[in-house]
Amino acid sequence: MKPFRKSIPVCILLLLFACFQESLAEEGKRKRPPLSPQTQACIGCHSRYTPGIVQDWLTSRHAKTTPAEAVKKPPLQRRISVETPPAELANHAVGCYECHSRNPGNHRDNFDHMGFRINVVVSPPDCSTCHPVEEKQYRGTKKPLAGKNLMENPLYHTLVSTINGVKEIRDGKIVTRPPSATTLQESCLGCHGSSVQVKGMKKIKTAMGEITVPDLTNWPNQGVGRANPDGSLGTCTACHARHSFSIEMARSPYTCSQCHLEPDVPAWDVYKESKHGNIFFSKQQEWNFSAVPWVVGRDFTAPTCAVCHNSLIVSPSGEVIAERSHDFGARLWVRIFGLIYTHAQPKSGDTTLIRNKEGLPLPTSLLTGEPASEYLIDKGEQERRRTMMENVCKSCHNTDWVHSHFEKMNVTIKETDAMVHAATTLMEEAWKSRVEDRTNPFDESIEEMWVKQWLFYANVVRYASAMTGAPDYISFKLGWWELTNNLRNMKDMIEMKKVLLKKGQ
Amino acid sequence: MKPFRKSIPVCILLLLFACFQESLAEEGKRKRPPLSPQTQACIGCHSRYTPGIVQDWLTSRHAKTTPAEAVKKPPLQRRISVETPPAELANHAVGCYECHSRNPGNHRDNFDHMGFRINVVVSPPDCSTCHPVEEKQYRGTKKPLAGKNLMENPLYHTLVSTINGVKEIRDGKIVTRPPSATTLQESCLGCHGSSVQVKGMKKIKTAMGEITVPDLTNWPNQGVGRANPDGSLGTCTACHARHSFSIEMARSPYTCSQCHLEPDVPAWDVYKESKHGNIFFSKQQEWNFSAVPWVVGRDFTAPTCAVCHNSLIVSPSGEVIAERSHDFGARLWVRIFGLIYTHAQPKSGDTTLIRNKEGLPLPTSLLTGEPASEYLIDKGEQERRRTMMENVCKSCHNTDWVHSHFEKMNVTIKETDAMVHAATTLMEEAWKSRVEDRTNPFDESIEEMWVKQWLFYANVVRYASAMTGAPDYISFKLGWWELTNNLRNMKDMIEMKKVLLKKGQ
Amino acid sequence: MKPFRKSIPVCILLLLFACFQESLAEEGKRKRPPLSPQTQACIGCHSRYTPGIVQDWLTSRHAKTTPAEAVKKPPLQRRISVETPPAELANHAVGCYECHSRNPGNHRDNFDHMGFRINVVVSPPDCSTCHPVEEKQYRGTKKPLAGKNLMENPLYHTLVSTINGVKEIRDGKIVTRPPSATTLQESCLGCHGSSVQVKGMKKIKTAMGEITVPDLTNWPNQGVGRANPDGSLGTCTACHARHSFSIEMARSPYTCSQCHLEPDVPAWDVYKESKHGNIFFSKQQEWNFSAVPWVVGRDFTAPTCAVCHNSLIVSPSGEVIAERSHDFGARLWVRIFGLIYTHAQPKSGDTTLIRNKEGLPLPTSLLTGEPASEYLIDKGEQERRRTMMENVCKSCHNTDWVHSHFEKMNVTIKETDAMVHAATTLMEEAWKSRVEDRTNPFDESIEEMWVKQWLFYANVVRYASAMTGAPDYISFKLGWWELTNNLRNMKDMIEMKKVLLKKGQ
Repeated sequence: MKPFRKSIPVCILLLLFACFQESLAEEGKRKRPPLSPQTQACIGCHSRYTPGIVQDWLTSRHAKTTPAEAVKKPPLQRRISVETPPAELANHAVGCYECHSRNPGNHRDNFDHMGFRINVVVSPPDCSTCHPVEEKQYRGTKKPLAGKNLMENPLYHTLVSTINGVKEIRDGKIVTRPPSATTLQESCLGCHGSSVQVKGMKKIKTAMGEITVPDLTNWPNQGVGRANPDGSLGTCTACHARHSFSIEMARSPYTCSQCHLEPDVPAWDVYKESKHGNIFFSKQQEWNFSAVPWVVGRDFTAPTCAVCHNSLIVSPSGEVIAERSHDFGARLWVRIFGLIYTHAQPKSGDTTLIRNKEGLPLPTSLLTGEPASEYLIDKGEQERRRTMMENVCKSCHNTDWVHSHFEKMNVTIKETDAMVHAATTLMEEAWKSRVEDRTNPFDESIEEMWVKQWLFYANVVRYASAMTGAPDYISFKLGWWELTNNLRNMKDMIEMKKVLLKKGQ
Repeated sequence: MKPFRKSIPVCILLLLFACFQESLAEEGKRKRPPLSPQTQACIGCHSRYTPGIVQDWLTSRHAKTTPAEAVKKPPLQRRISVETPPAELANHAVGCYECHSRNPGNHRDNFDHMGFRINVVVSPPDCSTCHPVEEKQYRGTKKPLAGKNLMENPLYHTLVSTINGVKEIRDGKIVTRPPSATTLQESCLGCHGSSVQVKGMKKIKTAMGEITVPDLTNWPNQGVGRANPDGSLGTCTACHARHSFSIEMARSPYTCSQCHLEPDVPAWDVYKESKHGNIFFSKQQEWNFSAVPWVVGRDFTAPTCAVCHNSLIVSPSGEVIAERSHDFGARLWVRIFGLIYTHAQPKSGDTTLIRNKEGLPLPTSLLTGEPASEYLIDKGEQERRRTMMENVCKSCHNTDWVHSHFEKMNVTIKETDAMVHAATTLMEEAWKSRVEDRTNPFDESIEEMWVKQWLFYANVVRYASAMTGAPDYISFKLGWWELTNNLRNMKDMIEMKKVLLKKGQ
Repeated sequence: MKPFRKSIPVCILLLLFACFQESLAEEGKRKRPPLSPQTQACIGCHSRYTPGIVQDWLTSRHAKTTPAEAVKKPPLQRRISVETPPAELANHAVGCYECHSRNPGNHRDNFDHMGFRINVVVSPPDCSTCHPVEEKQYRGTKKPLAGKNLMENPLYHTLVSTINGVKEIRDGKIVTRPPSATTLQESCLGCHGSSVQVKGMKKIKTAMGEITVPDLTNWPNQGVGRANPDGSLGTCTACHARHSFSIEMARSPYTCSQCHLEPDVPAWDVYKESKHGNIFFSKQQEWNFSAVPWVVGRDFTAPTCAVCHNSLIVSPSGEVIAERSHDFGARLWVRIFGLIYTHAQPKSGDTTLIRNKEGLPLPTSLLTGEPASEYLIDKGEQERRRTMMENVCKSCHNTDWVHSHFEKMNVTIKETDAMVHAATTLMEEAWKSRVEDRTNPFDESIEEMWVKQWLFYANVVRYASAMTGAPDYISFKLGWWELTNNLRNMKDMIEMKKVLLKKGQ
């Protein structure tokens, strides 16, 4: 088959589009807004070659309205935050070309495709054309910085490399090779995000013949802290998946569950076993996941992740209970994902800046748990954020209930920190008695047990406390039972390794 | 803002209620039954301050009918079991005040709230005003006694304290502090229930100003064996959650799954991987979870927890297959949740009475598995209960299928008891050879492995056998693979600890 | 109650059926096709004695159409593959008797039941009366051979027996008894299938009195590789469950999840945490699981198991993207379920034929991973199958995306094989240094760790790579974290066992 060329007449693409339109008509769909000529050309081919994408987009609001229409809604109902959409976009559906052609000057992945200049990757700045408030909230927070915060923190980077590097046995010893880009991409960076760079151009064979496309590193890629070829950080598609850009999906706890789950960030696992989760699973088919604003008690009868953390929530009478935010830490004051201990949320989304009093890139002292306070939000800011969260709780729970809940959580934070401290004390003994070596604190058996104490078991107990649930989970599955037994096993292992050490000498 | 006072005029509350009514009218809801003046007053404020609760209640049958109407239904369709509802309740919707004002003389949590005497906690005796049959079935069974049975059994209490106490390292030793009320409440007692007592009164700041409320221990609390401030045990809201009091939710396996799950009571995990669960997950959206009575094959096509254990099940032609019961052991004859071994169900819901032949508070001998028969139901009663369960199975399976199923289960019970016996034999050896100390049988490494053998792995295999499913789960995930390897690891650990013991001497 | 006899007059059965018809009429169901007199007789009693089965069948297409009607549909919409249905079946609904009376000469479980000759078990050859294409695709593939491939491979058989046999402690040693048929049936063979043979006839007491029925081994039984009493292998009901024979259920990932799940075949667990799974869980209620053919983007917006592996998929304009196949390996080229290492798919569904260069019944060399190529499909066939799979991916993803995905997977396959090789190297050292004994390679502690390396952890990482998802799962839950730590623990255990060995000498 002879390849298409960039000289391909637009009339042919439009002919293909006509066929597509006919099939749509057959489906008996309601009247749709006009498409730009460029998007018509895209759809002409892609409805044939990647029909799933096109169909997915057809289900989206982007296909069913125009920015000019969207902006007319009353403020609380608006799904678009730009005041005046750019004139050239205002009166067409938001189609392929509208998103994949933004800011070409910044996009190193911009290329000529069938006569059009196209970006492969759509970035948050591109989305900010119509959604500037959301992009601004999101920018600079921990989410878009998730890749950097992991890989440019020397301690975390060591953990990542220790786990993901291929091992060989050489002369009876375990030797770790540096992890491949592939494995990093499939494991840690699958959530955290990695860097999509343009290595050059390449020719590929497609159903339409040979075409030339940018040769990208780490692609496909939907990590929330992705570095984009336009120099920006982050990705909206991590939560607003694929081409339906759906608020329903972003509000679905299944979406959050892709990254926030057992054993290290067990939000999803705790939710599943909580009363809130029970109500969600039993009643979700009666809820309205697409209403804007989201009305407590009417659109949903129990919180999902989005309810507590970032959605615009109003009462049935229209009073705002919580403002929308795409800074997902906006209603969080304490970081229960212990590093190594709990601590107040960091001031900056860039946590690579933090140094504790031992000079380590950690928000707390390794040995004592003392916070690196200058990098963390102060009491006032903590209070402000907790009040925002409490307002959400108070939609359904009385004041005393809510206060008692957070008092309980404070106790649990202290107790889990104490359990981590006990493990760290044993770890110190193991290092001091030389049964293990602290150079790399993550590559020996007792060290592994120590990591599990804070990264898995303590986190699980804290998440369950914060999210009002999962009693059996934190009793026997992955909480107190393990916190307790892990200490004993650490101690037994230290004794046994002392015997081995003595024998080896 | 100036606080409301108990002298707040009812006319103001009713004015607030008028606004609420208007918003309801806007929602275009169908005609609703009249509300009592007291409930109107409650809603006047609470529709503003805790709108989620009010909306939740609006979805309930309590808001849509009156006891007088409910009692008119044909017996099999009735959702209320009182013969004649109290006159003062009969002709209003069942609202806030109707439930939160019952039996004030018994309620130590009764207090003056905006001019009304209110109980914070609603207890089973309160619900029995309209649902006396259900309360009577429930009273005295293992569910309301779940808190007592755990905490007043010295052996189980030791296990609870060993797991949940915060540990410190002192002089190189692990020292366990007594567990906090908070942690007990979030772990074991989250399901089992704890005691809600009135410590006194306290002032709290609310959106309406400062108010005085009872100061309760262990609150919030939805444990099924909760001790209530009116002296009763148990809680209906554990399963009929929050203010929708929904039979749909109580019938949802998600509700049961909050407490009956892996690793110790793996009913939910087994169900998920069973054919019954497969049908539920694939077809639930076509089922009717609210029909009373519940018609096999028409309202559901595979059993959920409630179908087998307690719902009123009838055939499409209206014949009763199984009577409703709120004694959740009514159709159970053997207790496969091994303590330490399987055994016939206890005669009394109060299992603290039981002593085995070694004098331990266990239903079987620790060493031999011999049952403490005088405390357990006899063969005749076992047979009677199994027949009730088999009748449910026979709705969809022929007699031979059902018999073969339960014969298989009997074999599995014996085999898992044998696997526990093997572990107990090794445990005895560890205790006798002094590598571990039996004083507290739960606080050392080999003891932990022994607990896992009966509490986790054997239970998993038995539940899968009883519930017709989960072959891979009991092969590799948490069953035979672990039962087998755990024995080896126990044996290896005994040998290693002998070396340590010798070295220490 | 006096037992029914085979002389029971058909008129009585038909009278019972009349009552049933009346109840149906009451339900206001639409016009149904005629039933054969035999099926009317079955339903006459069974609507009373096993109403759930009858109701389930009433929901099926078998109850709503006739083969003669079904065969009239345009080819792509057809759910029946016989060209001309047998005359005696063509014009009735497909009822009890139509399926349970096929090929009586082959069925050793055929018996006289109330005057009719009935087979207890319905086998794939019975279904092939109307679905010959599907049965032919299925026959001889790994699915119907799953029981044989497990139990007649000496190595796998040893693994099965080692895990599932009851253990006793005799003279301080762990002694394994051969596993019972019951436990095999509930564990490994629950999925793989076992042999249903007729031991003779037996009398059983039923609600209708004493009747005589075949006495079957291993029954009930829905394992996919079941050996049937007519001499055939396999079972359709493993996926098309019970009497609704539903394509919706067979397409539901919940169905596949009964057997393909963590820790050894973690397809389901990976799917749940993937973007594809996220879309399924968030959007499934809007999908159409019953449409034939299945239209990408319209009937579903993300793949389920069936989409990728065997369903007939077409584009919205009606072009076939993938043909239906009941050979579930038809679109698979590499076997990522490592035995011990990954390898090209076997040529024959009967994998008991395979011998590696060491003479072991494995598709790869134990020590080097070298494939037993003569038993495996060649490069050309691999290419052909991968192209079929890629065509499915390309419905929604562009060519470069798809290629990059499979390139990544190739890297992961190599890396996980290397991680298995490292464990095997340590295992070899353990065997050589005699700390464990290779006679049974599955019955000691280090051997158990070695099995976990390839059967659990490496598989998990490969499945996640293949299925585009589950980054956290393979980082911390059951992938690289475990692959890495397991090696260290193996090494530590070897050192410790050397101390024990020395001490024992």
